[in-house]
Amino acid sequence: MKLAIDAMGGDHAPKEIILGAMDAIEAIKDLEIVLIGDSEKINPILTNQTRISVLHTNEVITSEDEPVRAVRKKKDASIVLMAKEVKEGRVDACISAGNTGALMTAGLFGVGRIAGIERPALSPTLPTIDGKGFVLLDVGANVDAKPNHLLQYGIMGSIYTEKVRGIKNPAVGLMNVGTEDGKGNDLTKKAFALLKEAPVNFVGNVEARDLLGGAADVVVTDGFTGNIALKTIEGTSQAVFQLLKETFMSSFKTKMAAGMIKGDLKSLKGKLDYSEYGGAGLFGLASPVIKAHGSSNRRAIHSAIKQACHMVEFEVTKTIENTISEIEISKGEKE
Amino acid sequence: MKLAIDAMGGDHAPKEIILGAMDAIEAIKDLEIVLIGDSEKINPILTNQTRISVLHTNEVITSEDEPVRAVRKKKDASIVLMAKEVKEGRVDACISAGNTGALMTAGLFGVGRIAGIERPALSPTLPTIDGKGFVLLDVGANVDAKPNHLLQYGIMGSIYTEKVRGIKNPAVGLMNVGTEDGKGNDLTKKAFALLKEAPVNFVGNVEARDLLGGAADVVVTDGFTGNIALKTIEGTSQAVFQLLKETFMSSFKTKMAAGMIKGDLKSLKGKLDYSEYGGAGLFGLASPVIKAHGSSNRRAIHSAIKQACHMVEFEVTKTIENTISEIEISKGEKE
Repeated sequence: MKLAIDAMGGDHAPKEIILGAMDAIEAIKDLEIVLIGDSEKINPILTNQTRISVLHTNEVITSEDEPVRAVRKKKDASIVLMAKEVKEGRVDACISAGNTGALMTAGLFGVGRIAGIERPALSPTLPTIDGKGFVLLDVGANVDAKPNHLLQYGIMGSIYTEKVRGIKNPAVGLMNVGTEDGKGNDLTKKAFALLKEAPVNFVGNVEARDLLGGAADVVVTDGFTGNIALKTIEGTSQAVFQLLKETFMSSFKTKMAAGMIKGDLKSLKGKLDYSEYGGAGLFGLASPVIKAHGSSNRRAIHSAIKQACHMVEFEVTKTIENTISEIEISKGEKE
Repeated sequence: MKLAIDAMGGDHAPKEIILGAMDAIEAIKDLEIVLIGDSEKINPILTNQTRISVLHTNEVITSEDEPVRAVRKKKDASIVLMAKEVKEGRVDACISAGNTGALMTAGLFGVGRIAGIERPALSPTLPTIDGKGFVLLDVGANVDAKPNHLLQYGIMGSIYTEKVRGIKNPAVGLMNVGTEDGKGNDLTKKAFALLKEAPVNFVGNVEARDLLGGAADVVVTDGFTGNIALKTIEGTSQAVFQLLKETFMSSFKTKMAAGMIKGDLKSLKGKLDYSEYGGAGLFGLASPVIKAHGSSNRRAIHSAIKQACHMVEFEVTKTIENTISEIEISKGEKE
C-alpha cells in the first residue's frame, strides 16, 4: 500500500505532516509514503526515511489562493502533483491538510470520479455525545445539489461507515426541518423518496438538533446546508467554551474550581475534537482522497493515514462503483 | 394599545402565560390584554383582572396537530380566534407560545400579509457572546425561498432591529459558505446582488461559524437553512452542557468544583438563553404576530409582550410597507 501526502498543506506544515507520516510508518507495516513538497524544508525533519520518499516541488497552493484558478495555473503545486500520483497509479490514495477547494478541484479533475457518481461529497466524521460519531455529507463539495446526488451520498456514506468505521447496517438519515415524513423543501422531499428505495438502512428525516445526540450513523444533506451545519457546530461549541473560560476567570473562587478540573475539561474538549476520527473523505472520487483538518497535528495526520489505508484495504471505492452500477442496471430493467 | 394572547399555547400554559400577562400589565401602562382560552382554567390563575379580559373557547390546537389542517378545521381554536381579533381590528398585535406551524398558518390566512411582501419570515433574536444578540431570518416559515424573499427579509430584519432593538444602521449579513463575494449556491449569489442594492447596511456574506461571535446584527437566510442553523445551535450547546454535566459528576473532586461555581454556570447558561430577547416575530404580516418559545415561562411571556408593544409603538409594520413600496416604485421607474 502506498500513499501520497501533501507535505505543504495545513497550518502546521510541513513539520506535523512529516511527524505524522513517520508515526504511521512505524504503526502500519508494508505502508509506503511519498511526501510531496519542498525537500529543503522536509529533509531536516524527516529523521527516519524508512519507506518514505520525497517528491520535490517548490510550488504551493496557499489557503488564500482561489482554488480553481490556482489548480489550473500552479501545475507543480504539491496538491496537484499529489493528485497526479494517484491518477497515474503510482499510489493508492492521497491526503492533504491544505486548501479544501484546491483539493476538491485537483481531486475532481486530477483523480476523477467513480463511474456513475455525479458529484463527489466532502464527508467528515463528526463527534457525538456517546463517542460513536457520525458521517455528515456533503459539507460543501456541491452547493447546488439535486435529489439524485443526495441518494448517492447516502449510499457512499453507508458503504464507508460499514467498511471503514465497522458499523453494521448503519442508520442513514436525511437532515431536515422536522422528523415526520413529508417535511422539508422540494429537494429533501424528492431525496426522501429516493432514499426510501435505496439499498441502505434509511431511518427517515433527522433534525439538526439531534445530530450530536447520534440521530443516525450517516446524515445526508446538500453541500450548502451541510456546510452551514458543520460550521454552526464549530462556532457554537467554540462560543460555549469561550463563555466557560470567561466564567472560570471571573473570580478567585472560579479560578480555584477551574484548577481542580482542568484535566477533566481538557478531556471533555477532546470528546468534541473530530481530528480523532481522521479527515474528511472526498467520497465519489476514483481513489480515496482525504482532506485532513487545516489545524492537523501529527496525531490527526496519523489518523487520516490509517483512514486512507482502511479505505484502500476494504475497497470502498470499488464497492461504491459496484453498488451504483447495480442501481443503474435495476433502474434500466424497470424502465 | 391592546394585545391578544393565546392562553393555551406552550408547555407551561395557561399558568405561565397568565402570570406573564399580569406582570406586563403592571409594568406597561395603558396596555390592555385579551387572553384567549378556557376561562375555567384561566380564571383561577388570573388574580388581577386590571385591563385583562378573557375570550372563552374550549378548542385548542396542540403541538401534535398537523398545522394547516388544524387551523382549517378547528375554527374556534384559541390561536385561530387570536388571529381573528387582529384581523378585525380589535387588537394591535398577538402572541402565542403554541404550535409554530399553526401560528404561521393562522397568521398568513387570518392576519394576512403586508402589501408587497411575498413571504413572511419567522425571525428569532439569538444570543451572541457579547450579549448584543442578532436577528436570524427566516428560520422556517418558507423552506423554498427565492432571491427576492431574502431581499425582503433583509429589509424587514433591518427595520425591526433599528426600531425595536435600538441598533442604529444595523449590519445585515447573508449566511453563506464563505465570506468572500461570489461564494455560495445559486440562491445566495442572486440574493447577494439584490441585497447589495437594498436600502440596508449590507455587510456581505457571513459564515455560520461566526454567528454567535456577532458577525452581523441581522442574518438573512432561507427558511430551510435557517431552521438547520437554529437547531444546530440549540443541539450543540445542549450537547456541550450535557458533557459538562457528566464531567462535573465524574468524581468527588469535580463535584466539589461544580458546587463552587454552580451560580456562575447558571448565569453562563442564561447568556445563551434567548427567551430574554422575546419571541420570534413573524415579520411580513399586516400586524405584529409573535411566536414565543414553547417552553416560555412568565418572564419570556413578559419579554414577548414588551416586544409586541414596541413593534406597535414604533410602527414596524407600517415602515416595512412603506419601504417595500418605495423599492417597487423605484424598480418601476428604472424599467
